[in-house]
Amino acid sequence: MALLGIDLGGSKLAIGIFSESGELLFKESLSLEKRKGSDVGVFMTDRTTEFLKRAESEFTGIRSIGISVPGISYQASGKVWAPNIPGWTDYPLLEEVKSVAGQIPVTIDSDRACYILGEAWQGNARGCRDAIFLSVGTGIGAGILINGEILRGSKDIAGCIGWMALQRPYSDKYKECGCFEYYASGEGIPNVVRELLLDSDDYSGKLAGKPPESITSPDLFLAREEGDELAIRAINIAVEYWGMAVANLVSLFNPEKIIFGGGVFGPAISLIPAIRNEAAKWAQPVSINQVILDVSGLAGDAGMYGAGFLALKQLPDFKV
Amino acid sequence: MALLGIDLGGSKLAIGIFSESGELLFKESLSLEKRKGSDVGVFMTDRTTEFLKRAESEFTGIRSIGISVPGISYQASGKVWAPNIPGWTDYPLLEEVKSVAGQIPVTIDSDRACYILGEAWQGNARGCRDAIFLSVGTGIGAGILINGEILRGSKDIAGCIGWMALQRPYSDKYKECGCFEYYASGEGIPNVVRELLLDSDDYSGKLAGKPPESITSPDLFLAREEGDELAIRAINIAVEYWGMAVANLVSLFNPEKIIFGGGVFGPAISLIPAIRNEAAKWAQPVSINQVILDVSGLAGDAGMYGAGFLALKQLPDFKV
Repeated sequence: MALLGIDLGGSKLAIGIFSESGELLFKESLSLEKRKGSDVGVFMTDRTTEFLKRAESEFTGIRSIGISVPGISYQASGKVWAPNIPGWTDYPLLEEVKSVAGQIPVTIDSDRACYILGEAWQGNARGCRDAIFLSVGTGIGAGILINGEILRGSKDIAGCIGWMALQRPYSDKYKECGCFEYYASGEGIPNVVRELLLDSDDYSGKLAGKPPESITSPDLFLAREEGDELAIRAINIAVEYWGMAVANLVSLFNPEKIIFGGGVFGPAISLIPAIRNEAAKWAQPVSINQVILDVSGLAGDAGMYGAGFLALKQLPDFKV
Repeated sequence: MALLGIDLGGSKLAIGIFSESGELLFKESLSLEKRKGSDVGVFMTDRTTEFLKRAESEFTGIRSIGISVPGISYQASGKVWAPNIPGWTDYPLLEEVKSVAGQIPVTIDSDRACYILGEAWQGNARGCRDAIFLSVGTGIGAGILINGEILRGSKDIAGCIGWMALQRPYSDKYKECGCFEYYASGEGIPNVVRELLLDSDDYSGKLAGKPPESITSPDLFLAREEGDELAIRAINIAVEYWGMAVANLVSLFNPEKIIFGGGVFGPAISLIPAIRNEAAKWAQPVSINQVILDVSGLAGDAGMYGAGFLALKQLPDFKV
C-alpha cells in the first residue's frame, strides 16, 4: 500500500503518492486560485477523496495520510493557523480531512517541520537523527529534528528562528517580524540596502534608478553579480546574520547537518562557504567542526516529501 | 529501594540517597581537596562503595546510580570531559563506577542536563515536559528538556549557550568563551565595566579605587546596590543580553519554563522581571506569553537531584 503526502502552500496545493520506501509514484500540483477559508478546506477534501480513489485503483490503496501546512499545526486540537490563507486562524483541518479519510490515519504538521522530515527521509539529511532545515524565503523558519523527532515545543510553535535576537540594542523596526528576519529574509535584505542608501548620497550604481521601496532580493542578487558595491555590502551583512544564526543553532543543538532551503537558497547557495566561515567565528568550536552545511535535496518538493514521511511515521509498525 | 545521585563539581563531590518518589534521605558533601586525574576517580568509587554499603544497611539498598559531571558526558563511550578537573579530557568514569556498582545500573550526564532534570523532578520545573535551566556562573550553559528528554545533540555537546552570537560584528574578544558569556557570565560582566571605564575618565564612583582587572561580579552587584552608575550601566547591559538569550530560547524551543540558576542568580534574581521585559521585545510574541521565568528551586543541590532523577529514569519500569 501507499502513502499520501499533501503539501498546502499559501497559493498552491501539491499532493504526492509515495511508496513506503519513499519513492514518489504520482504527483499533482494545483493553484489555490485565491480560494479562502473553508473553500480551501473543501478543495483539500475533494482532492484527497480523488487521490484515495486513484490510489485504490492504481496503487493498492492508501495506508496513511500526512499534511504539511504553511503555519502552525496544533497537535491537541487538530486545528491549524495559516497566516497566508484568509480565515485560517483556528481552522479544523484534521476533522475535515478525517471526514473523507475513513479508517485511514491522518496527521498534520507545520511546513518547516515537514521540510526537515522530507530531507531526512529522501533528501540531503538522509540517515540524520539530529538535523535542521533553515528555510529562508519571504520569512525565516527552522524545522528541527532531535533524535529523529520534530521539536514542537510546549504549544507547537517551536522553530520561530526569524525572531532570533542578533543585534543589540533593540529597535522598533524588529517588532513585526523579528531581528533576524528583518535583516536576512527575502523581504529583509532590501531593508539593509534601504538603510545603506540613506548614508550613500553619491551612490550611482545598478540600483540607483529604482525607488528604494521597490528594490527586491532578486534585484540585489543580480546587482551583486554585476559587481554593484551596495548590493555586495547588503548581502555580506546578510551572510553575517546567516552565519550567526547557524552558529547559534550549532552551539545549542549540536546537529549533524543544517540544510538551507526556501526561495533565497536559491541564489544564496553559492554563499554557503562564506556563511560557514562566519559561523565558525562564533560557534562552540568543537560543535562547528562536527556539522555539515548543505542545500535542500528536494527543493520545492521538501514539504510534500515531509508530509509523506509524516504519514509513514504515524504507522504503528514504523521503525527507524 | 533507593537511588544514588552523585554530583561531581570542579572542587567538591556531593552524594545523595533518594527515595524513588524524590525524597532526599541522606546527603554528604566533600571537598575534592585538589585531587586530580585518576585520584578523583578513586575518590568517587570509594565514596560510591561506602554509600552502597550504607544504603544496604539503612535503606534496603540502591537500585540505580546517576552521576552529574561538570563538562561533557559522551554517551557512546562512557567517557567524560571535565575542563576543571586536571587530566579529565577523556576519562573512563562509567567503566570505573561500574566496576564497583556490580549489577546496579549507572548513568552519567552533564551538570547542565542534571540541573534541569533536578528541577523537573523536585524543583521549580515540576510537571514540565519542555523546560530550560539557564546556568549563569563563571561560565554559562543551558540544560534543555524537550518532551521530557534531555537535548543531547549528535555528539553530546548541545546546550552551549555561552557561545550564542548576540552582537554583530564579530570581535576577537569572543574567541575564548563566546559572545554571550563574554558579556553576561560571572566572569563576563566585569569585562563590560572595564570597557566602560576606558570611556569614563572622570569616573569617581565606588569602583574607582580598584584596579580594573580585579573587579568581580560580586563587587559590581554591591556597587549597584549602592547606586554606582557604572555598575548600574554594566548590569543593565547584562540584562539586555540575558533578555536576548531568553528571547532566543523562547522563539526556538517554545518552553513552558526557563529556570535561572548558577552563582549569578544569586544576586541577579531581582532582575528577572527586567530580563522578562527585555525578552518580550525580541521574542516570538505568542511564545513569550506562554513561558514562565523562575529561579532554581534546588539551588546548589540541583545537580545532585538531577543525578538522582537520572538514576530513576534509566530504570526499565520508569514511567512519566
